[in-house]
Amino acid sequence: MTVVVKIGGARAVDPEGALADIGALKDEGTDVAVVHGGSTAVDDALEQMGIEPEYVETPSGVVGRFTDEETMDVFKMAMSGLVNTDLVTGLQNQGIDAVGLSGVDGKLFYGPRKEAVRVVEDGKKKIRRGDHSGSIKEVNGDLLETLLDDGYTPVASPPMLADDGVAVNTDADRASAAVAAELGGTLVSLTDVAGVYRDPDDSSTLIERVETPEEYAELKDAAEGFMGRKVMAATEALEGGASEVVVASANADQPIRSAVEGGGTHILPSALPKDD
Amino acid sequence: MTVVVKIGGARAVDPEGALADIGALKDEGTDVAVVHGGSTAVDDALEQMGIEPEYVETPSGVVGRFTDEETMDVFKMAMSGLVNTDLVTGLQNQGIDAVGLSGVDGKLFYGPRKEAVRVVEDGKKKIRRGDHSGSIKEVNGDLLETLLDDGYTPVASPPMLADDGVAVNTDADRASAAVAAELGGTLVSLTDVAGVYRDPDDSSTLIERVETPEEYAELKDAAEGFMGRKVMAATEALEGGASEVVVASANADQPIRSAVEGGGTHILPSALPKDD
Repeated sequence: MTVVVKIGGARAVDPEGALADIGALKDEGTDVAVVHGGSTAVDDALEQMGIEPEYVETPSGVVGRFTDEETMDVFKMAMSGLVNTDLVTGLQNQGIDAVGLSGVDGKLFYGPRKEAVRVVEDGKKKIRRGDHSGSIKEVNGDLLETLLDDGYTPVASPPMLADDGVAVNTDADRASAAVAAELGGTLVSLTDVAGVYRDPDDSSTLIERVETPEEYAELKDAAEGFMGRKVMAATEALEGGASEVVVASANADQPIRSAVEGGGTHILPSALPKDD
Repeated sequence: MTVVVKIGGARAVDPEGALADIGALKDEGTDVAVVHGGSTAVDDALEQMGIEPEYVETPSGVVGRFTDEETMDVFKMAMSGLVNTDLVTGLQNQGIDAVGLSGVDGKLFYGPRKEAVRVVEDGKKKIRRGDHSGSIKEVNGDLLETLLDDGYTPVASPPMLADDGVAVNTDADRASAAVAAELGGTLVSLTDVAGVYRDPDDSSTLIERVETPEEYAELKDAAEGFMGRKVMAATEALEGGASEVVVASANADQPIRSAVEGGGTHILPSALPKDD
């Protein structure tokens, strides 16, 4: 069995419980790969350097980071240098032989660059150029499997390598989906809430299991904001061959194990809308 | 044949020639591993964050970075996040399937922490605590060989993982020596001069070949400042099993090939002082 664990980069997500849990899973013979974000660390580093983080809104209302060249350097520093190294160190201290990777290593995450983005500024649609972002179309599964076969736990994060040879930003949730699809495993996406709620303000409305296209439609309606990105990533993971996606809380006791064993929101391949 | 290339982190060292050269060597079937420094990038990042880099002098006159906890975070950012990612990106753009590693990854560089250092301040000897530095005693050769066997080019740099579980600074020259010793290869240490000169100010006094203990004694006398560190690293590499060490210019045409084929200062195992 292979489990891909997505650890969020938000300040409210504490990775400690997940790190201990990975050791227990490894001991049982489960292959584990980790994918992480780190947007908070990027913003912190930008602030330390006196650079204002810039977020733009697309015409469809999605808010994302605008990553110019200077910001991209800070992104690499915070994401690959600080967050990744600290996670790998934490895993090593749990006795887990982790190896950190960015998407540039072995072209782990590769795909087209999106240099120009449509944005809405002051109510007007504009084209902004110079963005450092891209979409993952290829994952180097050979590199991950080589490391897993040798007993290592890969810990991967953006940046990705774009087709113009530049390291660029890419969404970490979708990166984790691409890894789960490539490895055909279960994606456990850890976040700061217990899963997807029908009513975002009411944790008693947790959607536990999404097995049919009807339940999937309900899930999509319920998922707002960053949960919308998680559902999009879940869809990509399942379309690509992941066996299951679970959205669950990082702050639970044994967060990965409890997610695999039924906690959180489980989304199954049978939930994907059928093509006509 | 295995070549370990040390690429310096000084501002005067341009890695471009070396990157192109690595591709040619790989095409000929030579395994190449890269180890790099990045002290200039660390100082630049510290400056951007408004932190003054701190250098201390030991009683024996060696000047080195004092790395407190805050500086250590910036070190990880600049070294593993920026310099490593940029080198791996540069190699990928030469068609070389590079994979970046810090010494924490797979415990690539592991050994004792040196938390307290003896320093001289205002002419007085003191003990300073809180330094994040250590000495490499173990190199994970399995991880390097797994990657090399699969066609990847490992690109490694400090930090190392200290025995107290903390990622700490370590000398990149000595890290490259440890890798060359572990792999039993040739260490090509690229720098901003053509090798070790008998007279540091006169490039016509290049020491070309060091084969005997007498020539080694002459080399040690000639090596001053940072060259002293390179000679110490060369000694460690050869003592550990490296086949040859070459100190040569990074800025030459085909810098690695010309070093392997006779350029620069060649130091051979027969030069090591014999134990009585």
